[in-house]
Amino acid sequence: MKIVINRDKLMESIQHVTKAISSKTAIPILAGLKIQSTHNGITLTGSNSDITIESFIPVEEEGIQYIDEIEQGEIIVHAKYFPEIIRKLPSPSVQIEVDEQLQITIQSGHAEFHLNGQDAEEYPQISQINTETNFELPINLLKNMIKQTVFAVSTSETRPILTGVNIKVEGEQLHFVATDSHRLAASKLPLQESIAEFPFEQVVIPGKSLNELSKILDDTEDKIQISISENQIAFQTNHLYFLSRLLDGKYPETSRLIPEESKTVIHADTKTLLQAVDRASLLAKDNHNNVIRLQTKDQQIVEISSNSPEIGKVEEEITVASMDGEELKISFSSKYMIDALKIMETEQVKIEFTGAMRPFIIKPIDHDQILQLILPVRTF
Amino acid sequence: MKIVINRDKLMESIQHVTKAISSKTAIPILAGLKIQSTHNGITLTGSNSDITIESFIPVEEEGIQYIDEIEQGEIIVHAKYFPEIIRKLPSPSVQIEVDEQLQITIQSGHAEFHLNGQDAEEYPQISQINTETNFELPINLLKNMIKQTVFAVSTSETRPILTGVNIKVEGEQLHFVATDSHRLAASKLPLQESIAEFPFEQVVIPGKSLNELSKILDDTEDKIQISISENQIAFQTNHLYFLSRLLDGKYPETSRLIPEESKTVIHADTKTLLQAVDRASLLAKDNHNNVIRLQTKDQQIVEISSNSPEIGKVEEEITVASMDGEELKISFSSKYMIDALKIMETEQVKIEFTGAMRPFIIKPIDHDQILQLILPVRTF
Repeated sequence: MKIVINRDKLMESIQHVTKAISSKTAIPILAGLKIQSTHNGITLTGSNSDITIESFIPVEEEGIQYIDEIEQGEIIVHAKYFPEIIRKLPSPSVQIEVDEQLQITIQSGHAEFHLNGQDAEEYPQISQINTETNFELPINLLKNMIKQTVFAVSTSETRPILTGVNIKVEGEQLHFVATDSHRLAASKLPLQESIAEFPFEQVVIPGKSLNELSKILDDTEDKIQISISENQIAFQTNHLYFLSRLLDGKYPETSRLIPEESKTVIHADTKTLLQAVDRASLLAKDNHNNVIRLQTKDQQIVEISSNSPEIGKVEEEITVASMDGEELKISFSSKYMIDALKIMETEQVKIEFTGAMRPFIIKPIDHDQILQLILPVRTF
Repeated sequence: MKIVINRDKLMESIQHVTKAISSKTAIPILAGLKIQSTHNGITLTGSNSDITIESFIPVEEEGIQYIDEIEQGEIIVHAKYFPEIIRKLPSPSVQIEVDEQLQITIQSGHAEFHLNGQDAEEYPQISQINTETNFELPINLLKNMIKQTVFAVSTSETRPILTGVNIKVEGEQLHFVATDSHRLAASKLPLQESIAEFPFEQVVIPGKSLNELSKILDDTEDKIQISISENQIAFQTNHLYFLSRLLDGKYPETSRLIPEESKTVIHADTKTLLQAVDRASLLAKDNHNNVIRLQTKDQQIVEISSNSPEIGKVEEEITVASMDGEELKISFSSKYMIDALKIMETEQVKIEFTGAMRPFIIKPIDHDQILQLILPVRTF
């Protein structure tokens, strides 16, 4: 194998696939990074038990020559040293050559590295997903839906299914739902024709996989192709192939959790509320759950407060755009509230309460595509 | 006590003095931050067993009003919560009021915090240094001398005196020297009249103190006033008072370590050499000492290499500006070499070797104000 390639383009691909590589793997060969060259270009692969990422660099694209010389072959390189070396090479061009003894020679400018490689034959076969049952989404919309939900997955393994984001199609909408059983985050997107062929009733994708996927994807309107099999999901863009396992088991029915009526409805400026909650949280950190209190006052005034006997207390009155219904005193986790408000894109939010002991919901002021639900904490 | 003060100016002072505050202190009151107000302004104080930092905010300076209202008093505030609260306050103005029960009320916009304070009477008295024996330096020159030496102090407590930077006056020059006994960094500055009154033969300042001092100081040509007593040193600018303990004991005589003659002299481009050493260090990290090798070749060629049997090896030939004297093969720590080259400000450096087993020195090409010395490692 021999390639002469643009250093920065190679580095970009390396950074994508190393997101899937862990030095703590049960299968030692997976601690390496696979490089495969054909006459079309090179493919880098990184994998762990949950995720596999492949990145392709074409010889030439849109008039830009990325690879000047290429001979077929494949090799496993050290996933720690190889990236560090490529990053620090002196010249914008790098030549990588592999001999029969799996010795890798990397040359750039006057620097010459010799690395021990491993046989690519030992690398596990990456399963391919049947691409007949796929659909497409704009990348930026997918990233948005991930951002609006993934933070609410459970970090505890007591109910593994809750560590994932539930994805399904219902009523011509694509739904993303995540909950750790203390709060819930949901986002939906009207379906276009192509997406109506959602091939499974529902799937659950590990939150970690979605976080990594989101990091790799640029925020563009380009399409990403999504294919689903019984136990895996693949995301494919022009030069990237991202494969994740699915979580096994049935996701709990969450729609019943969402209150259908409300007793107190507040419309508030998102940023004002977020900052007041953030300040109140300062004195709530020593509590186990970052608990703060919200209390309605006369007219359009809401008081946010918290109290930490040893440190001190904080109270802040904010003026809201409107307040209807019953008076209310409610306590909840400031962390959950901050998470929920941070992903709201509208200037104002609508908060619907059904009493101090019932879950409440937060939505954008003018649409229902995002819903955040928080369970209160009993303090008085 | 009552003050109405500019939030950002207060925050800036808080950030300075908290550098001296540790939550792990043997004297519990020192985990707090002291605020003292007089009719001139307020003084914040943070302290630990090594360093005390005082920052003063005047009521008004150069036409800018920092404090709108001030009543005398003093209080100890929580050094964790107080800064976090001030940073997140909604309005650019903050009112701080302390009552008889040491309750602190912080108001800004509609936010109101109540914090428990501690009695300032319990805070230890900060010793003042006799200011008759002081001298001045431009701040940027002091920062340079710290940067050029402090990285070489020992991090081990086996010889505590080596954890400090030795400062003395010799031959009308101010000298800074640091060594961990494997390498040495020295910087000197021609004395101006005012500095000739260096009041002590030599002092040793903890490296940590100098690092913190350097972080707080802006890179200006303003003067900083330095006062020394038997066991403390104070640095004073317009509104900052930085007090550090001195290390006890005699600093070793280091001048004898510096070879007076050389057998091989190389002039090399600083950046080219630094990058080649950095690349070679990539495959030297698994060695205990990051050991790399330098070998002279024909003409103006120097080879930098390293070898890590399990991973691989690297060789790089660099062309140097000149090379005189004997052939040489020498091994040394790439980390020490990188540290030494990083602080060099000249485009070229001069390296003087006296054989493979003797310390070698690195200097700027055109002056002697900076000297870096590295002990080689015996490998062949």
